[in-house]
Amino acid sequence: MVRGKPSFTILLRFIFTALLLALGSKAHADEGMWTFDNFPIAAVNKEYGTHIDQAWLDRTRLAAVRLSTGCSASLVTAQGLVLTNHHCVRDCAQQLSSAGSDYVKDGFQTARREDEKLCPGMVAEILSSISDVTPAITAATAGQTAQAFVRARDAAIAQTEKSACAGKEEQFRCQVVTLYQGGQYKLYTYRKYTDVRLAFAPEGDTAFFGGDPDNFNFPRYDLDCSFVRLYEGGKPAATPDHLIWSAAPPKEGQPTFVAGNPGSTQRLLTVAQLETLRDVNLPEILIQFSELRGRLIRFSEASAEHTRIASDLLFGIENSFKAYRGEEKALVDPALITAKRVQEAELRRKVASDATLSVRIGDPWSDIEKAQLRLKALYFPYGSMESRAGLGSDLFRFARTLVRAAEERPKANGERLREYTDSRLALLSKSLLDPQPVYPELEQLVLSFWLSKLRENLTADGAGTKIFLGKESPESLAARLATSKLGDPAVRKALWDGGLAAVKASDDPMIKFVLATDAASRAVRTQYENEVSGVVDGASQRIAQARFAILGTSVYPDATFSLRLSYGKVGGWSENGATVPAFTYFSGLYDRATGQYPFALTPKWLDAKARLPLNTVFDFVTDNDITGGNSGSPVIDAQGRILGAAFDGNIDSLGGAFGFDPRVNRTVSVSTAAITEALRTVYRADGLVKELTAR
Amino acid sequence: MVRGKPSFTILLRFIFTALLLALGSKAHADEGMWTFDNFPIAAVNKEYGTHIDQAWLDRTRLAAVRLSTGCSASLVTAQGLVLTNHHCVRDCAQQLSSAGSDYVKDGFQTARREDEKLCPGMVAEILSSISDVTPAITAATAGQTAQAFVRARDAAIAQTEKSACAGKEEQFRCQVVTLYQGGQYKLYTYRKYTDVRLAFAPEGDTAFFGGDPDNFNFPRYDLDCSFVRLYEGGKPAATPDHLIWSAAPPKEGQPTFVAGNPGSTQRLLTVAQLETLRDVNLPEILIQFSELRGRLIRFSEASAEHTRIASDLLFGIENSFKAYRGEEKALVDPALITAKRVQEAELRRKVASDATLSVRIGDPWSDIEKAQLRLKALYFPYGSMESRAGLGSDLFRFARTLVRAAEERPKANGERLREYTDSRLALLSKSLLDPQPVYPELEQLVLSFWLSKLRENLTADGAGTKIFLGKESPESLAARLATSKLGDPAVRKALWDGGLAAVKASDDPMIKFVLATDAASRAVRTQYENEVSGVVDGASQRIAQARFAILGTSVYPDATFSLRLSYGKVGGWSENGATVPAFTYFSGLYDRATGQYPFALTPKWLDAKARLPLNTVFDFVTDNDITGGNSGSPVIDAQGRILGAAFDGNIDSLGGAFGFDPRVNRTVSVSTAAITEALRTVYRADGLVKELTAR
Repeated sequence: MVRGKPSFTILLRFIFTALLLALGSKAHADEGMWTFDNFPIAAVNKEYGTHIDQAWLDRTRLAAVRLSTGCSASLVTAQGLVLTNHHCVRDCAQQLSSAGSDYVKDGFQTARREDEKLCPGMVAEILSSISDVTPAITAATAGQTAQAFVRARDAAIAQTEKSACAGKEEQFRCQVVTLYQGGQYKLYTYRKYTDVRLAFAPEGDTAFFGGDPDNFNFPRYDLDCSFVRLYEGGKPAATPDHLIWSAAPPKEGQPTFVAGNPGSTQRLLTVAQLETLRDVNLPEILIQFSELRGRLIRFSEASAEHTRIASDLLFGIENSFKAYRGEEKALVDPALITAKRVQEAELRRKVASDATLSVRIGDPWSDIEKAQLRLKALYFPYGSMESRAGLGSDLFRFARTLVRAAEERPKANGERLREYTDSRLALLSKSLLDPQPVYPELEQLVLSFWLSKLRENLTADGAGTKIFLGKESPESLAARLATSKLGDPAVRKALWDGGLAAVKASDDPMIKFVLATDAASRAVRTQYENEVSGVVDGASQRIAQARFAILGTSVYPDATFSLRLSYGKVGGWSENGATVPAFTYFSGLYDRATGQYPFALTPKWLDAKARLPLNTVFDFVTDNDITGGNSGSPVIDAQGRILGAAFDGNIDSLGGAFGFDPRVNRTVSVSTAAITEALRTVYRADGLVKELTAR
Repeated sequence: MVRGKPSFTILLRFIFTALLLALGSKAHADEGMWTFDNFPIAAVNKEYGTHIDQAWLDRTRLAAVRLSTGCSASLVTAQGLVLTNHHCVRDCAQQLSSAGSDYVKDGFQTARREDEKLCPGMVAEILSSISDVTPAITAATAGQTAQAFVRARDAAIAQTEKSACAGKEEQFRCQVVTLYQGGQYKLYTYRKYTDVRLAFAPEGDTAFFGGDPDNFNFPRYDLDCSFVRLYEGGKPAATPDHLIWSAAPPKEGQPTFVAGNPGSTQRLLTVAQLETLRDVNLPEILIQFSELRGRLIRFSEASAEHTRIASDLLFGIENSFKAYRGEEKALVDPALITAKRVQEAELRRKVASDATLSVRIGDPWSDIEKAQLRLKALYFPYGSMESRAGLGSDLFRFARTLVRAAEERPKANGERLREYTDSRLALLSKSLLDPQPVYPELEQLVLSFWLSKLRENLTADGAGTKIFLGKESPESLAARLATSKLGDPAVRKALWDGGLAAVKASDDPMIKFVLATDAASRAVRTQYENEVSGVVDGASQRIAQARFAILGTSVYPDATFSLRLSYGKVGGWSENGATVPAFTYFSGLYDRATGQYPFALTPKWLDAKARLPLNTVFDFVTDNDITGGNSGSPVIDAQGRILGAAFDGNIDSLGGAFGFDPRVNRTVSVSTAAITEALRTVYRADGLVKELTAR
């Protein structure tokens, strides 16, 4: 479930809990993932005694980088150098590795820029401007419902994106960002960089010391950082707008700002939607991830090479599993649903007491509730055959993209499936055509798992099972499909360029499989849009309009992997009566090491111990409100200096896609102090240190 | 989670759904798992026009067999021949197999009785008498709460069992059966047979045709039968009380009775307990089983020998997973909890309106509700370190049994942990000392999984993690423990006989591991008994007393793997408007076969096709109310003839540990007609056919 959707697990890296968001009251101090065009500057300056202004916001925005692989990052020098997390380049490092050189295990560094290596499929984007296109999109959907709503909206978005970037597509990406579940549509124009190269990564076991057992915990001892560099015309890009590198440690109580792209929150969902998450989606996801995890663990144990090639996928699954499990635990707590029910009743009461609004809005809550029954009925067919089809198989992703692109590209822009509109083709084709390793044994595992779950969930006699499996077993079909030649980028290129005729003439087993099954996949998608997403999206838009009418924009929108700014301060928290301090130090890393994975130190760190100042601040926590997708986000002080890179949330914050609890929710970051010291003393990366600390 | 608790998964093979059990109203037609001393003879005869009487009940009881491995069965000839399910001897067949001869894959049959093979650890029991010991047990616990309640009750039970069987322990087992959650205690005296030998088993793929995908489904084409024989003094036991074998097919509407040992239902639990099952136990079990399932699937795929040795464990996990998943689906349906809440409120109202009863009973519902909080807090420590410790590792089970038995046996009978009281030692030592294969690679997998989940759920810094793992990783500790020599029965025998001194002197790694960790396990058990089970058991007893006071014994008790009788009739049901007929035929097996596992026919069945009467009734459904543990139960007509062996429930009935829905809940059985024909024509087991059909 990671491959093909590389952003998916990383988006979920941070998910935060809270029971306290009272609708109608002001957001809590330090709560909120604010858009840059609606940041509460005055309130923040008042609370913290800071002096941030529009210029500060603009500088921050221009240094904030979004990575197409599902992460955040920031420019830290004028030569295109970008700081992000190690786990944000883990996939890249694995793709650049081979049985002979393992950049995930051993890390990657080079003294010469010309040895920096292109990350396949990665695009870096910097937000240039925001404009409101709500009226145009909303007008296009007026009076529409169900699938007609979805298609009209998507066509209007495709048209808006295409015309906004017309003539400048090479350097820019135009994206309509949906906010407040459709209450607002904003056009975000990004300066884009398609040549992004890996410049530095520590060893995986240093970046992720403590592994899955320590994941989402604090105290923590992870050097979860890496550097990539933006290139233009084959040379490092000139990036005068960058954050100021600081090697000074963060201080208790210091105001902090996190600029990044939180991926997804569900704070504004209706109670019926939350109950569906609790009773259907999350239990099923946890079950599926657990079995896949088990298969991957045994696969990995078979050999060192298996360990290497499954490492990124297993990391992603375990990471998401822990995050989803936290979500589920939050939702089964009756206090959360009760609080949400009270909030929803209050909003509905206010709507009902306003006759005009009432007529305009109708009863979207009931519409959403009814659609949940259809969602439950379609959960397995839609998931198995369409939305999660292939479950992360690269070969399946390649084949579906080639088949669908061949069918969709000849259509008018507004009539295509949304993934194939003109504004998306550049990124889509890059992620399809960039060379990237494919491991047939791992593919076979993933495909076999997907197909066996398809049969299990649709039943042996289900119509979908018959279409996808025929009389073959999941295991034998997976073995056959894994012989596909689509792992060869030249084969993909030929089919991409050759269009539908070439695709139909192909004798590749995966292409033939997708050609034979895609009508069924498209049919269940149509049904889902008609009965579920079209209904829910239309109704959600009306709820958003009601909320605006009553509350204005004092409520921030749910996260949508678009640029946001959160504010807060450095500080620990109380746990069962004990205080968890805000900082860890290098010394703690050495204390915690056992010599056994995942608590083993690498040779470089063992060697450097005597030379390192052990009182260097390593990781630290702040009460910024972030979530998955914020991984790699710069933590900035009020003067615009970067103090660290956010990489996790603490365990208390798990499960809080639904709100924010300032008492215990914490962002976990690696300090620039630790990064600087490690580069200098452990890795002797003198060139990087010089570049970062130059003034 | 199967090994060491062989009954566990089989007990769960059937779990039935229902939303209709209205407290205070009469049970539905065909509902109920009635004890033999409270069977509603008159009502049944009236409804079905049958003429069953006490003599019929007595004959049925004396032919009904309980297998200590968690199944039911029945005597079908006077030479000790017992019919049960294939899946009830699967474990035995695997234990008797080796890399060279695989009785699970190839089946087992012999023309000569002297080649029948002893099933390790298996004991067969036939219920001789029932007497009421409620006053003695209840008196012993009067005024006690928490752990004191548990210990007083267990001591009284141990004393009752020991004195009842004094002097006849060789041939009898005395067991106090807890009914109505402690509302009744009955002394069940069993005639026992400790020499049980495998006489016939079909190929695993014939018995379980359709495998996991078809499991719990109907129509069905499974020859899920086998025969074992009871021996005494090295010769087939004389068993004059047996059912009459019938090769006639069942008929639509024919009355049917199922005599067997349903393992566990939760129909009388409080709402708070059901919510805990829904929110804690079931989600966690499904997650754990899924990951273990994934590990076992990859393990099995590594080689044919791995497939063989993991087969029984994987079967058990998949079977239980499907059953638990059905339970969870039933519990997240708000209709179920709502109905239960209404029933509970009604009972509480009736108690409140009776001043005397009210004072006597108190508020046990609130006591149970409060204990749920402690259950949640202790769920992982208690599960990881005590109740599910080892997760099915045979080596761990051996070591814990040896260590604890050495500590407990010197104590007075009433002061021991309940598993080590005198009345339990015979079965315990048999299951410990009988030779049984141990596979170090599989042990390593299971131990590694258990220890990694222990660390995950108790956290890397948890006190339990430090005690069980120290600075070792789960993987390295598991590898070390798997080198234990306890797989050798002579080693176990020496330690069993040598007692505590021998155990303490042992340098076996698993023995040393249990010695080092057992104090922590016992401590969490004490805590759990004090804060959870002691409170809940005491309160449940009071609820049962309230129910008796108001309803008498018109309500049957929850299942407790003790002998019950259910009544019903042959008949299909309606599903989405279509009728599912009651019967399948041999012809359907050949139609469904694809040639690929699990829909592949064995050579014997391919060969026999032309000779078989294809219109023979294969499997059939009835509306008897049964659940896991009933596997292998005889389906009997009103004349005492056996029509088949129950082996499953249909998919509609999954999840219904909580009640019975006569519209759609069905028992699935294999017919004696099919068994007879298969023995004769497919297996040419002429000796068995002759024995079965002799008059």
